Amino acid sequence: MDRRSFLKTSALGGSAAAASTLAAPAYAQGNRTLTMVTTWGRGLAGVHDAAQRVADSITAMSDGQLTIDLKAAGELVGAFEVFDAVTSGQADMYHGADYYFVGQHPGYAFFTAVPFGMTAQELANWYYQGEGMGFHDELGQIFGLKSFLGGNTGAQAGGWFRNEINGPEDFNGLKFRMPGLGGEALGKLGASVQNLPGAEVYQALSSGAIDGTEWIGPWADEKAGFQEITKTYYAAGFHEPGAGLSVATNRNVFEELSPGHQKIIEIAAAEAHQWNLSQFLFNNGAALQRLQSGGVKVLEFPDSVWDAFGKASAETLDAYMDDELFARIRASVMDTMSASSRWINDSEGAYRSQRDRVLG
Amino acid sequence: MDRRSFLKTSALGGSAAAASTLAAPAYAQGNRTLTMVTTWGRGLAGVHDAAQRVADSITAMSDGQLTIDLKAAGELVGAFEVFDAVTSGQADMYHGADYYFVGQHPGYAFFTAVPFGMTAQELANWYYQGEGMGFHDELGQIFGLKSFLGGNTGAQAGGWFRNEINGPEDFNGLKFRMPGLGGEALGKLGASVQNLPGAEVYQALSSGAIDGTEWIGPWADEKAGFQEITKTYYAAGFHEPGAGLSVATNRNVFEELSPGHQKIIEIAAAEAHQWNLSQFLFNNGAALQRLQSGGVKVLEFPDSVWDAFGKASAETLDAYMDDELFARIRASVMDTMSASSRWINDSEGAYRSQRDRVLG
Repeated sequence: MDRRSFLKTSALGGSAAAASTLAAPAYAQGNRTLTMVTTWGRGLAGVHDAAQRVADSITAMSDGQLTIDLKAAGELVGAFEVFDAVTSGQADMYHGADYYFVGQHPGYAFFTAVPFGMTAQELANWYYQGEGMGFHDELGQIFGLKSFLGGNTGAQAGGWFRNEINGPEDFNGLKFRMPGLGGEALGKLGASVQNLPGAEVYQALSSGAIDGTEWIGPWADEKAGFQEITKTYYAAGFHEPGAGLSVATNRNVFEELSPGHQKIIEIAAAEAHQWNLSQFLFNNGAALQRLQSGGVKVLEFPDSVWDAFGKASAETLDAYMDDELFARIRASVMDTMSASSRWINDSEGAYRSQRDRVLG
Repeated sequence: MDRRSFLKTSALGGSAAAASTLAAPAYAQGNRTLTMVTTWGRGLAGVHDAAQRVADSITAMSDGQLTIDLKAAGELVGAFEVFDAVTSGQADMYHGADYYFVGQHPGYAFFTAVPFGMTAQELANWYYQGEGMGFHDELGQIFGLKSFLGGNTGAQAGGWFRNEINGPEDFNGLKFRMPGLGGEALGKLGASVQNLPGAEVYQALSSGAIDGTEWIGPWADEKAGFQEITKTYYAAGFHEPGAGLSVATNRNVFEELSPGHQKIIEIAAAEAHQWNLSQFLFNNGAALQRLQSGGVKVLEFPDSVWDAFGKASAETLDAYMDDELFARIRASVMDTMSASSRWINDSEGAYRSQRDRVLG
């Protein structure tokens, strides 16, 4: 499936084309308010916080010359409508997970996470020092967006299940919530995969509409309350080893801003990437302990399941390789992953092993 | 040794006290230029880049209202004189490694690295979400500084040696460059430890004034040229598992700035922490390969050496525990390390193991 077929088959292709021919917004030169829509319900732990962090930093650094009016999912448009809202100019910017928009272009998956892909640090290496930010901008030029990473959840948990998983066959027929290309991979194992926004997941799991779900990790999952529904939890997952969140501004709006305000948006987003990652990792440890104290069993998938995940993930990514941009992004990601992982293992990896051995 | 004895015995105690009674600088309300001195020779890979990144971001985000005039080590004051220069008001801010200033207060060690301490991510967790930033500010109040993390090298290499290290006894009498509390720990193994600024290390190793040195990691070490002098390199070290760099502004100068400009300095510094860490980790892998191709042997210390490092590190930190602030900072660091490391191992650690196993 190439990019043209995406544009043709997507309802958003039309609005993206329209966005590029809009007249430049006629902003006053004084203070401005930019409307930010998000893919998160108001108050969703961590992910809504990342959007709020970006908004607050922009407002504060500009001394109020740029004020961000944050509209959570459903307050102006629905979670999955934010891309369309910003490309069309209905809203000025969105904060969200770009893999929700693989229907617009499959290359967006890499800016959140692809199965068997980069950890959060590997993503940062690629994005801020390699070709990542440039590719994000190349996608943005297609749709009329100026995009930056603006949050990260760290490695996501394998998720919540009604029953333990003993082999890949246990996914056959399982109704499971998992967005992005990870969800497509899970479908190859026979799962019935659903892509629900975060605010709707608890109700779906509680009512039995789905048999299981991944969400983020112990801290956000505990706040969402999934431990009230089932006690079977897998710590490590294959699908989002370091999920990035994005801040995307309507490109015409962005280009109307002063160079200083443009830089403020860029740096505020980057700072939120680090701040948010440290938020998840700071809180996950204590939450995991609380969940276990409350009776949650924390498990790891057997090797046979990881093998099946690996095979399905490769097949999923392979299916998009006739899209030329997707293929270039994937090759760039694989280069960074293999170049940076050896040193991380030899230095920090060896140190952590020795520290844990010596300190006991 | 308590804090009062540090202030009494340090030449900087006087200037810090003086700084707190200086009149507020009489800045014009228009554009301002702030002078930034650094502990880095101009162009030192990674560390000078971090200082430049902070300077450039501040200038760009303020649309030039705040311009940073960066003076590398030796251009205005020497590398180790930057603390005194900023507390006294001779310069407005410094970029440097705060463990150079353990003589002013031993608590500064935690904001670069302590032996057997935090990785870069653990430092970020503690600094941005735990008590780290607050403690940095508590130290800053003593000396008249407003400090933020503004760079990170990642886990540093064990370093360059003329001869292989086969046991802890091989450190006896070794003349070795290692700053901070790591250097103090190495001294307990009988090493003659020197604290040279980066720009002077190559000459010292080359002339035989020192027998070995740690510097940063493959990329920065290669640029420094140590592989021209010896081919024996240890990848993992105990002394700086994730070394933070700092941006410290004279507190009176900082408080004179508008809230927007204050926030610009804070966010620019934080963004540089992430940007710089990804710079080192992006470049280290390829540099390691080049070094090996050039004949460098990449080794790991035996367990007996790690055991000795661990014992010496604990003794080193224990010796400062009668300083009440040092003791509070150390306890806070240990809390964050133990709370966050379990989840990181169970999720990202398990994922990386499975990814490497499945992808081969």
